[in-house]
Amino acid sequence: MDLIIKNGTVVTASEMFRADVGVEQGKIAVIAERIGGEAGRVIDAAGKYVLPGGVDVHTHLELPVGDLVSADGYYSGTRAAVCGGVTTVFDYPTQTKGKGIVETVAERRAMAETVACCDYAFHCAITDLGAGDALLDEFQAAADYGITSFKCYMVYDIMVNDGVLLKILEKTRDTGCLTTIHAENRDVLEARIASFVSAGKTDPWHHYMSRPEFVEAEAVKRGIHWAVAVNAPLYIVHLACKEGLYAVAEARTQGHPIYAETCPQYLEFTSEVYKRELGRNFVCSPAIKGPESRDALWQGIRRGVIDAVATDHCPFAQAEKDRGIHDFRKIPNGCAGIENRYPYMLSAANTGRISFSKAVEVCAEKPAALFGCTSKGSITVGKDADIVLYDPAKDFEITLKNMHSNCDHTIWEGIRLKGYPTATFLRGEPVYENGTYKGAPGMGRYIKRGASGLN
Amino acid sequence: MDLIIKNGTVVTASEMFRADVGVEQGKIAVIAERIGGEAGRVIDAAGKYVLPGGVDVHTHLELPVGDLVSADGYYSGTRAAVCGGVTTVFDYPTQTKGKGIVETVAERRAMAETVACCDYAFHCAITDLGAGDALLDEFQAAADYGITSFKCYMVYDIMVNDGVLLKILEKTRDTGCLTTIHAENRDVLEARIASFVSAGKTDPWHHYMSRPEFVEAEAVKRGIHWAVAVNAPLYIVHLACKEGLYAVAEARTQGHPIYAETCPQYLEFTSEVYKRELGRNFVCSPAIKGPESRDALWQGIRRGVIDAVATDHCPFAQAEKDRGIHDFRKIPNGCAGIENRYPYMLSAANTGRISFSKAVEVCAEKPAALFGCTSKGSITVGKDADIVLYDPAKDFEITLKNMHSNCDHTIWEGIRLKGYPTATFLRGEPVYENGTYKGAPGMGRYIKRGASGLN
Amino acid sequence: MDLIIKNGTVVTASEMFRADVGVEQGKIAVIAERIGGEAGRVIDAAGKYVLPGGVDVHTHLELPVGDLVSADGYYSGTRAAVCGGVTTVFDYPTQTKGKGIVETVAERRAMAETVACCDYAFHCAITDLGAGDALLDEFQAAADYGITSFKCYMVYDIMVNDGVLLKILEKTRDTGCLTTIHAENRDVLEARIASFVSAGKTDPWHHYMSRPEFVEAEAVKRGIHWAVAVNAPLYIVHLACKEGLYAVAEARTQGHPIYAETCPQYLEFTSEVYKRELGRNFVCSPAIKGPESRDALWQGIRRGVIDAVATDHCPFAQAEKDRGIHDFRKIPNGCAGIENRYPYMLSAANTGRISFSKAVEVCAEKPAALFGCTSKGSITVGKDADIVLYDPAKDFEITLKNMHSNCDHTIWEGIRLKGYPTATFLRGEPVYENGTYKGAPGMGRYIKRGASGLN
Amino acid sequence: MDLIIKNGTVVTASEMFRADVGVEQGKIAVIAERIGGEAGRVIDAAGKYVLPGGVDVHTHLELPVGDLVSADGYYSGTRAAVCGGVTTVFDYPTQTKGKGIVETVAERRAMAETVACCDYAFHCAITDLGAGDALLDEFQAAADYGITSFKCYMVYDIMVNDGVLLKILEKTRDTGCLTTIHAENRDVLEARIASFVSAGKTDPWHHYMSRPEFVEAEAVKRGIHWAVAVNAPLYIVHLACKEGLYAVAEARTQGHPIYAETCPQYLEFTSEVYKRELGRNFVCSPAIKGPESRDALWQGIRRGVIDAVATDHCPFAQAEKDRGIHDFRKIPNGCAGIENRYPYMLSAANTGRISFSKAVEVCAEKPAALFGCTSKGSITVGKDADIVLYDPAKDFEITLKNMHSNCDHTIWEGIRLKGYPTATFLRGEPVYENGTYKGAPGMGRYIKRGASGLN
Repeated sequence: MDLIIKNGTVVTASEMFRADVGVEQGKIAVIAERIGGEAGRVIDAAGKYVLPGGVDVHTHLELPVGDLVSADGYYSGTRAAVCGGVTTVFDYPTQTKGKGIVETVAERRAMAETVACCDYAFHCAITDLGAGDALLDEFQAAADYGITSFKCYMVYDIMVNDGVLLKILEKTRDTGCLTTIHAENRDVLEARIASFVSAGKTDPWHHYMSRPEFVEAEAVKRGIHWAVAVNAPLYIVHLACKEGLYAVAEARTQGHPIYAETCPQYLEFTSEVYKRELGRNFVCSPAIKGPESRDALWQGIRRGVIDAVATDHCPFAQAEKDRGIHDFRKIPNGCAGIENRYPYMLSAANTGRISFSKAVEVCAEKPAALFGCTSKGSITVGKDADIVLYDPAKDFEITLKNMHSNCDHTIWEGIRLKGYPTATFLRGEPVYENGTYKGAPGMGRYIKRGASGLN
Repeated sequence: MDLIIKNGTVVTASEMFRADVGVEQGKIAVIAERIGGEAGRVIDAAGKYVLPGGVDVHTHLELPVGDLVSADGYYSGTRAAVCGGVTTVFDYPTQTKGKGIVETVAERRAMAETVACCDYAFHCAITDLGAGDALLDEFQAAADYGITSFKCYMVYDIMVNDGVLLKILEKTRDTGCLTTIHAENRDVLEARIASFVSAGKTDPWHHYMSRPEFVEAEAVKRGIHWAVAVNAPLYIVHLACKEGLYAVAEARTQGHPIYAETCPQYLEFTSEVYKRELGRNFVCSPAIKGPESRDALWQGIRRGVIDAVATDHCPFAQAEKDRGIHDFRKIPNGCAGIENRYPYMLSAANTGRISFSKAVEVCAEKPAALFGCTSKGSITVGKDADIVLYDPAKDFEITLKNMHSNCDHTIWEGIRLKGYPTATFLRGEPVYENGTYKGAPGMGRYIKRGASGLN
Repeated sequence: MDLIIKNGTVVTASEMFRADVGVEQGKIAVIAERIGGEAGRVIDAAGKYVLPGGVDVHTHLELPVGDLVSADGYYSGTRAAVCGGVTTVFDYPTQTKGKGIVETVAERRAMAETVACCDYAFHCAITDLGAGDALLDEFQAAADYGITSFKCYMVYDIMVNDGVLLKILEKTRDTGCLTTIHAENRDVLEARIASFVSAGKTDPWHHYMSRPEFVEAEAVKRGIHWAVAVNAPLYIVHLACKEGLYAVAEARTQGHPIYAETCPQYLEFTSEVYKRELGRNFVCSPAIKGPESRDALWQGIRRGVIDAVATDHCPFAQAEKDRGIHDFRKIPNGCAGIENRYPYMLSAANTGRISFSKAVEVCAEKPAALFGCTSKGSITVGKDADIVLYDPAKDFEITLKNMHSNCDHTIWEGIRLKGYPTATFLRGEPVYENGTYKGAPGMGRYIKRGASGLN
Repeated sequence: MDLIIKNGTVVTASEMFRADVGVEQGKIAVIAERIGGEAGRVIDAAGKYVLPGGVDVHTHLELPVGDLVSADGYYSGTRAAVCGGVTTVFDYPTQTKGKGIVETVAERRAMAETVACCDYAFHCAITDLGAGDALLDEFQAAADYGITSFKCYMVYDIMVNDGVLLKILEKTRDTGCLTTIHAENRDVLEARIASFVSAGKTDPWHHYMSRPEFVEAEAVKRGIHWAVAVNAPLYIVHLACKEGLYAVAEARTQGHPIYAETCPQYLEFTSEVYKRELGRNFVCSPAIKGPESRDALWQGIRRGVIDAVATDHCPFAQAEKDRGIHDFRKIPNGCAGIENRYPYMLSAANTGRISFSKAVEVCAEKPAALFGCTSKGSITVGKDADIVLYDPAKDFEITLKNMHSNCDHTIWEGIRLKGYPTATFLRGEPVYENGTYKGAPGMGRYIKRGASGLN
């Protein structure tokens, strides 16, 4: 045995139980009441929880946005991830006109290969199907390459219109893949931006006012409508509004395979943050909504309407955020979260808001299953030994200096958590311990995903 | 008294009762059990129903479409109208880039003035708000001119996007006006057309397949979403699908002022007509849907979810329809109905499908009220003496030679009706009797409408 | 002409228009712009509204409850009615074990015959179907006698259980009649009463607490469930809660013939009244609910979900109410309203809360139509000349001394109304003028009703 | 190690993975890729699935009904259970007037103690709260004794009315317990029975006609209404109708903790069985419904609306069933299922209708968790070694002679299954192998349950 974790309490999406966990060749080889015998390393996890490594299915590393690039690249982003108990991240390469899917992803895969600190997978955002919709013919090859989920933006210049979205839904349905959408209504938010700008209302609060609840909700409902119309599964990324959540719930009640993800910023904050002096730092899209939406999202997690909590991690340096101090249009969109999500949700469990099993379910098991990441997400014999030790008694205050991102600020500054990860193992190798990164760049591997594990 | 109609049964939207009706100076002056005394003309309506003249709130006369013009102009269209018991028609002038609303309508009003055989009102379709949305500033002036309803196309090149639609909804809300929408999803139907065309599927059936139920339903739901979001009233023209109808019903249940219109072609036919040899003649948009939608629309009329039955009258000559015999894209959209709608709905009443009061409600009273046409729509003292005598015992078969349109064919050919109008009076003047047009061009007058009579 | 009312503004459920109204032999004989000639009486109604006499489809006159009898009998109750602009009242005789329907009603009809000041009709509450459900065989005979609606109590000792209710629904469906229900859940309210009593909580507030929103809502939903199951029409009397209203709205959206009535006490007051010093005076069942329900009921009226506003008029003398000053179980249930409902709803119109047409619709036209009272409810040629003159400029404060009930107090004490009826005519005869009753006992006639006029 | 099961495929509610399973002292001690070393017994499960023992949370053993007793007692019933892969059964003792809960259960526990072949737990059906609702005071003691769920019948003489049900809901909410209901409307079904009997319609088909879909659906909706009103969790036993299922789904969508169970007879058969020559054998309550309900129930399982599949096992001897050959009222209600449920659901998985994980979830894991049976329901380290080996390649035809019930017939006769259990272990001890019972009476133990594990 290479590693034995003794005396801990294992948490799965359905249970908590005391067991020793043994690792061999990077896999979970044994789960037992007691594991005897010798081992390369033996850890006493008494009083600790033994959790699957987190799976963050929504990140943007080294993302170019205009003349800027998001603050974390494949190295610092994944380093921060493992320090937050995350062992798998999904990045979102964006296909552009004329490029193939595999080609698009391969470029990013190459960037990650030598530096990644945790394992990584890729969705692919589709922006242009080409003449005669030729790109649709590559979906099967992409799936064979391990890319079994595709994103459609309903906003930004990289958006696809509903006609293209519908074709992608049909194609993913036929190839066992999953379509994901960024749901906001572009025409309305642009019209509102123009109106506010011409009225001189350009502070960060008007970022929210430009894209309030109903602007997001409409697009969520529209996306669901198309998915239901052609009987295709659909996954809504970073859902942030109550009305959209209810639309997801209603579709599921009627038996449609509609899935939803939210992010910790939508669970912790409300739109009031845009009135803060540093309101610009919270600018992300969809905008953070009012308290009714926040509360509904927590209820959605408890009731199983929300399948995944991911981060949309995409921070920008303070100076870059400051560009928009007087004009919200100039604020690069995105916030940090990759190191905070899992501890934040576990702290919610530790304080009784949800169960620990639910935290593990939405942060690891269910997103891994949904996205065909079959070797990840659970403390189960045969899975990769991606393991987190969690000390429920450890108090922790998030502050920039104990974070491992490259970014020079964090929206989570000052947030206190009850309980915190004390160690992370990636396929059995220690990569994080007690606040310190212990791994090496390039340890992370590309995950070739299988068909979407829809239920 | 200029005219007395004796011994008939008056039908209003709420009741049927025996009464004499007396007319003076073009107005209904008396309704009484018996009207004695002298009169310019006395008609014995024993055995007949005395109905308000029909109000057709959706027609396209002399509509230019590419190099074509719809078959009926302001003369032949209104002549056909009165021969079908209709005394008021609403036309839909389309504002174009740079033009004002009143300017747009005034041109059309001038065209109608010397030739119209019945009274006429105008909505105005808005296509471009201009720099700084300047056109919104003209809405009040338009209302003062009598234009209190505005249409937004969600399809065609004249469409407005959701951002513009939302602004128009807000403006009409604030000015006591009403926004109407043509609801279909343009991007999806264009994508489907392109797919079918590239697959060589260009017969009329694929007109329907390009814009099936879910393409219309999405836009209906979206339109309602925006109206509800900004608390504005909304009127959906030519609703043709069940799912859209249910969305209207649900919004109304929740207290939102959402209104719906359907057309007789959606009540009589199903999409199967597109498989007929002359399927191209039935090409209109939205496409005629399947039997579930047709049945739901009837139920919607009975339950008060549908407020108006109008025609979208817009026929094209057979040779013009034939252009698309091998390519549905080339078929000019639109069908006849202006002369058929009222008799068709009354026949439905006469055969027990709905009540006569309901037929009068959806064909005259409620659309007149909704669109601020306060002098029309009901046999009430003080209203214009727009009166139809209806013989419930008269059998009638629609066939081209007994129609009064300019068009050289009709989709209603061969349809048999039970009961038929035998006379129409416009403000007290006879304009139709027993199959023959009796009026004179130019008798019709422009109706300056008031604020929308929303309830 | 016996009577001409000149220069007034006629209000119907759909319109308001200036017209003279002529009456002959107790019927509305003429409606005209101007009625010339001689007449027995000519009234100048300039500045006034000419309304149909109110129809109150829910009253309990001379109702025996234990050792008490409700304060108003057929004389004082109908006298109060006409002084409040009401010309037709429906009373609710209760069939008891072994009695026939016609027998039950005939007794009450005889009581009314010599004293009634307005016309009167009867529903019949059914309590026992007898051996082999024999009473069901009398429904057709009852309909022939003019009794075309039947009430089922879901509470009290006179209740029927769901099995009986279902049979009555089926029978009324087959005979063109209408079932009405008093919807509360008896077992739950009795259990709650017992619990509160054993805890010493017996003040009037616990009348409400014993039967809060969810106790009524359950029964409403259950009644609708049965009606929908057997495709029978159903009318819910004195609906007082939001959740029940929404259930009605949803059923109607789906096309089911479900109707609802509310009462002015549910529109004006909230459950807070039970905390007043005279809280016992407001005790009625269903209890008056919270502000959410009150507001929803107004919205239901505006949106057409509520078909009728009636009173459930059933006041008891102060000394009788006082019996329960320390024990809500001893408070006889019921409040006054017969003289207040129509002026109250018209005042709501006069202050812009609803339209005058809507007030006329729910207080006269629609209940008359629903309950087959075809000669009543509207200013229409041929109808009974039941006419109210209403002065919109008259201020009025309700206080006991200007009321015409026998009761020695009123829950409406001190309520101020804008506008008030100045005259009432019953079949052309003046019965009320400017605060004074002008009629004679026995003027009122029994109304033999026709089939329910469901739409 | 006492027992090692090698080379099998472990199935949990979320995953399938190849692993060896080691058992010590009746517990699952190790799950590992390979377990080496010595063991009391080593089984090669290559090609087989290793499943948790089934948990049947709804059985009636030795149930007295009038002068009859159900065919299986605690011995034969539990023997049949283990031969169908079930290692835990829940029985439903019924409290009667004047008896305590623990007293009621203790009697039954004593009956089971010496004969049970598998472990057993008890719900308790409550029929009478006693004076001052005194029984409610015993709920906490009952919970301490291991009884954390209580049943309310809404039918039969043992029913409680809604007032009592509401109190029990509140009490179970406050004590961490769970209320379960048998949902049918008693008054309506009894009225229908009486009508059919008096019309001479007494064949088994009229058992169904007496209690069709809408009779069950009403009670389901009512139960949910009360649970939602007081914010209490609720579990609906043997749900058999589509409309009820939709009500459950809707309540869950809105965040209410409502749970549902169905039974295999409702998944396999439709009401048509009552027209069979042996239709009486299928008589159970609720009655088996039409195909729409059956199909909806499967969909409910797939979408997670149904939490548990249990049996309501309660067969009667053929001669007893025959009592009602001419009068369905005399047919004792109940069918066999205890040995068939788990193989039936696994066969559904094996033929692709659901996943194996879903079969394990609804037949073992989720019901165990819901009912606080924390040592059962999953192949997890530390749980009881209740293990089933399942051969997916084994064909099996259910026929009386290969069943282990005492009953002399089975409704499952002739049903063919794909795959079948080949061995069952109860806390590590073999109790069934290849068609033969291998255990001994009295091996089963009482399970003291914990608080309901609601999510």
